[in-house]
Amino acid sequence: MSQIDHTLRGTWTAAGGANAHLPPHALRWLRARIGLDTGTSRVPVGPDSAFRVPESALPAAARDALAAAVGAGHVLTDRAARLGRAGGLSYLDLLRHRGCGELAVPDAVVLPADPGEVQRVLEVCAEHDVGVVPFGGGTSVVGGVTALRGGKPAVVALDLVRLDRLVSVDPVSRVAVLQAGVRGPDAERLLAEHGFTLGHLPQSFERATIGGFAATRSAGQASSGYGRFEDMVEGVWLATPAGEWRLGVAPASAAGPDLRRLVLGSEGTLGVITEVALRVRPRPVVVRYEGIVLDGWEAGSAAVRELAQRHALADVTRLSDDAETEVSLALAGGWQGAAVRGYLAARRVAEPCLLVLGWDTASPWELAMRRAAAMRVLRRYGAVRLGRPAGEAWRRGRFAGPRQRDALLDAGVCVETLETATHWSRLSELRDAVRRALIGALAGPAGAPVVMCHVSHAYETGASLYFTVLVPRAEDDPIGQWQHAKAAACRAIAEHRDGPLGPAPLGTITHHHAVGVDHAPYLAGEIGPRGVEVLRAAKRALDPTGILNPGKLLPTR
Amino acid sequence: MSQIDHTLRGTWTAAGGANAHLPPHALRWLRARIGLDTGTSRVPVGPDSAFRVPESALPAAARDALAAAVGAGHVLTDRAARLGRAGGLSYLDLLRHRGCGELAVPDAVVLPADPGEVQRVLEVCAEHDVGVVPFGGGTSVVGGVTALRGGKPAVVALDLVRLDRLVSVDPVSRVAVLQAGVRGPDAERLLAEHGFTLGHLPQSFERATIGGFAATRSAGQASSGYGRFEDMVEGVWLATPAGEWRLGVAPASAAGPDLRRLVLGSEGTLGVITEVALRVRPRPVVVRYEGIVLDGWEAGSAAVRELAQRHALADVTRLSDDAETEVSLALAGGWQGAAVRGYLAARRVAEPCLLVLGWDTASPWELAMRRAAAMRVLRRYGAVRLGRPAGEAWRRGRFAGPRQRDALLDAGVCVETLETATHWSRLSELRDAVRRALIGALAGPAGAPVVMCHVSHAYETGASLYFTVLVPRAEDDPIGQWQHAKAAACRAIAEHRDGPLGPAPLGTITHHHAVGVDHAPYLAGEIGPRGVEVLRAAKRALDPTGILNPGKLLPTR
Repeated sequence: MSQIDHTLRGTWTAAGGANAHLPPHALRWLRARIGLDTGTSRVPVGPDSAFRVPESALPAAARDALAAAVGAGHVLTDRAARLGRAGGLSYLDLLRHRGCGELAVPDAVVLPADPGEVQRVLEVCAEHDVGVVPFGGGTSVVGGVTALRGGKPAVVALDLVRLDRLVSVDPVSRVAVLQAGVRGPDAERLLAEHGFTLGHLPQSFERATIGGFAATRSAGQASSGYGRFEDMVEGVWLATPAGEWRLGVAPASAAGPDLRRLVLGSEGTLGVITEVALRVRPRPVVVRYEGIVLDGWEAGSAAVRELAQRHALADVTRLSDDAETEVSLALAGGWQGAAVRGYLAARRVAEPCLLVLGWDTASPWELAMRRAAAMRVLRRYGAVRLGRPAGEAWRRGRFAGPRQRDALLDAGVCVETLETATHWSRLSELRDAVRRALIGALAGPAGAPVVMCHVSHAYETGASLYFTVLVPRAEDDPIGQWQHAKAAACRAIAEHRDGPLGPAPLGTITHHHAVGVDHAPYLAGEIGPRGVEVLRAAKRALDPTGILNPGKLLPTR
Repeated sequence: MSQIDHTLRGTWTAAGGANAHLPPHALRWLRARIGLDTGTSRVPVGPDSAFRVPESALPAAARDALAAAVGAGHVLTDRAARLGRAGGLSYLDLLRHRGCGELAVPDAVVLPADPGEVQRVLEVCAEHDVGVVPFGGGTSVVGGVTALRGGKPAVVALDLVRLDRLVSVDPVSRVAVLQAGVRGPDAERLLAEHGFTLGHLPQSFERATIGGFAATRSAGQASSGYGRFEDMVEGVWLATPAGEWRLGVAPASAAGPDLRRLVLGSEGTLGVITEVALRVRPRPVVVRYEGIVLDGWEAGSAAVRELAQRHALADVTRLSDDAETEVSLALAGGWQGAAVRGYLAARRVAEPCLLVLGWDTASPWELAMRRAAAMRVLRRYGAVRLGRPAGEAWRRGRFAGPRQRDALLDAGVCVETLETATHWSRLSELRDAVRRALIGALAGPAGAPVVMCHVSHAYETGASLYFTVLVPRAEDDPIGQWQHAKAAACRAIAEHRDGPLGPAPLGTITHHHAVGVDHAPYLAGEIGPRGVEVLRAAKRALDPTGILNPGKLLPTR
């Protein structure tokens, strides 16, 4: 509650602590690597730069009805509150908050206290034809919380921060019910009091919420062990303009289609998730993170594939390609980076690819069993062990990405990520296609883009690819620079080619960032016109006047 | 193709081999146990009993159009073909095929050759307003393939038996595409040529099809290891009256809701599944099945819970309660049963509960690791090992249930199964409630019902319960006798009580038998009125005139 009046971007940076900024040597190295001159950036720095926030267009009658539903003190129309819910945390969002391009600002922020109040807010908004953007941590990087009006006269951000309770814990069944507004660290703290963990640790963990994880089909860094968020959901309850909806009875069922899966990934377009029943696990007792190096992308990805197909994945299994490994070692800096590079050269590793493995286990016995199974596979691929420091270094910095990005923005760097997934037999083809698209779109006289990639999540049949792009920012059109590159990458991903599932896109347009605004144009290529029709039909049934999260998920007609 | 003119029930029995009938000692023991006199049954025996099959009501124009779509030889209206697709394999279906009650017979059987012909069949049926019942193995036990007309002038069975191809195998990604009409054993044979297995072994394995597994959210006996069928699906392709629909791009995605999950479990009401892309695994090299005995239901279910929660389940993990164990040992007969009973008495096991464990592994090393993890848990619950013969005996008879049922029917026994699932903290409450309901409804002057139960599938948060009922058949009203008992059990399962997910049904109305006709009245209690509205909306989008599988899944208004 204390944070609701802050600009989220500022809050995130302020909470950064030791990892908030890149050390000077890292920034120097990066500037040299991407060819960035040291002239000052023309993009303004900091969240307080002056730009016009339009007057709230929320009709007085709607505002009064909302105040009656949640209390007058929980309907905010001040500049700070509205700016704080104006979009998410994509690179373009950050630029917009620095004064580049247009920023969509909600007309008000509504803060219901519980599921019943959420339901009443939807009823009021339906009656007054006001758009509603459900807002959790505000960490979307695909425009999922952009305050679009979608033809409505006004739009409010429905902030779920007050739905912050652990409702119940069943220690026998290992099921906990959490409210939608609980943030990652708070979920872990509340569950720890009962000896449990969720184990869901996406990079957005520090701010993102239970409801957001569910609405976007989130996948955490330890998903190889704990599963994707959708795999943890036992029940999901939502408010919809058509009324409340509770789903979930048993751990498994054949009672028709699993409609929980229709809600998971619906991104606030079908209803507002208010509570989620989740499978929890005992807090780990013995934890070990370590670093391994494999020589080259092909050996590395083949090793991870065999780990996945032999069910020998560590809970965290993360393979960087040679470009990402080079940058990681350079940024580690000082004697650590040099020592590792020397050690690998002595072992004749030509193209080091860092594999981070992390196990959360109940006992030394379990750790030994699982680690032995993994090492048995990795030895055959010529794995070189870097030991625990390399794993622990990754672990310490695992949530630092968003904060480092602020420092890079200040330095004039265009920095963004995107991700996809496909089957193993097409993984290298997909990586090459996306790299080629990004490098082709971003190469220019100003400098050379660095395109790094890692496998963040591995499955028996395939894996995800997570790309990070660093390039000098084009100060004449920073928004257009990235939009051009992103479109090229999306086209490469979405291109239909023959594969193990017949003709289909080369990869999914998103493995865990969700659809939002940015990926909506590619959805029909992935789920087909029938899929779009079915989603529209479900929306008509639950949200007949179309007030929920306008412009997201479904392609505009 | 050679079997398509047979009555399926006859085919099933004929294929039975060594397990086709119960041995005489078993039948004697059972008769005594349930108090069945040895008078002959009044229910006719065999599939050829005389009853009226109405003339086909398929209009000539529709028949001609269907013949144009699939070839005249693939539109069948003869008595044998139509009777062969008249319903599934529930106890009530078997009774109806013996002349009790009303039998719904399709007006024709249509046999398309490929997905394109399936699409054309749907277009013809939509144009002529003819109902369509997709028909795979015909093994539904919930009325899922009953030839209801749903207000249409005629209904055809769309038999997918000719869609019998393995379309492709990607050995790197371990993905295979199978057509919908491929039966369990054929799928295994086709995949074995490439070194792979699906590992999906429901009791209906011998006849059921890939399309049926997908349409009903099937779960096999080895689901603890191989997963439920829905967990194996990478892609699913279907024909719908609105056009073809292909779903599936990557092993995981966040591109909106997972619409594959809307198709899985849709039971032919949204479209006809034509091809399924499935995750496959290498055929196991080292297989071990064994029997363990635990003392009493509470110890047994606690042990299975800990196996599930420690991720130490065997691929097959199946716990019988004391009633089922007693029957199993009695039916084993001869010295085997007596020897085991004596051994257990000497070990002072008061209420033996048989736990069958089966591992499919790649190596002796893997088996040793996994078995050690399981035994470590089981020792703490006082497990008594029966060794491999007990496991192998179960494995040999694993698909015999449907055939034994025919023998029991001949002997005048009412025999049926039903199943549910819930969270661990309510499992014993659910078992007690269903047992009480069944015993209460079936107790009578004719004899005492035997109600047996086993945990067939275990998950971290809960488990399924599978009940088998044996009672002397009420010859005056055999249909009503079971309908009364089934309704009592369903009410017990569906009763809303407070639990780990808040107020919710005590269990799911079906864990793996699906909804069909029999469970449709309970669906709204499980997915809520919103859920029913959403399913209806999806159906309107894909099947606007409502020709697909009338009367199934969705409650009739």
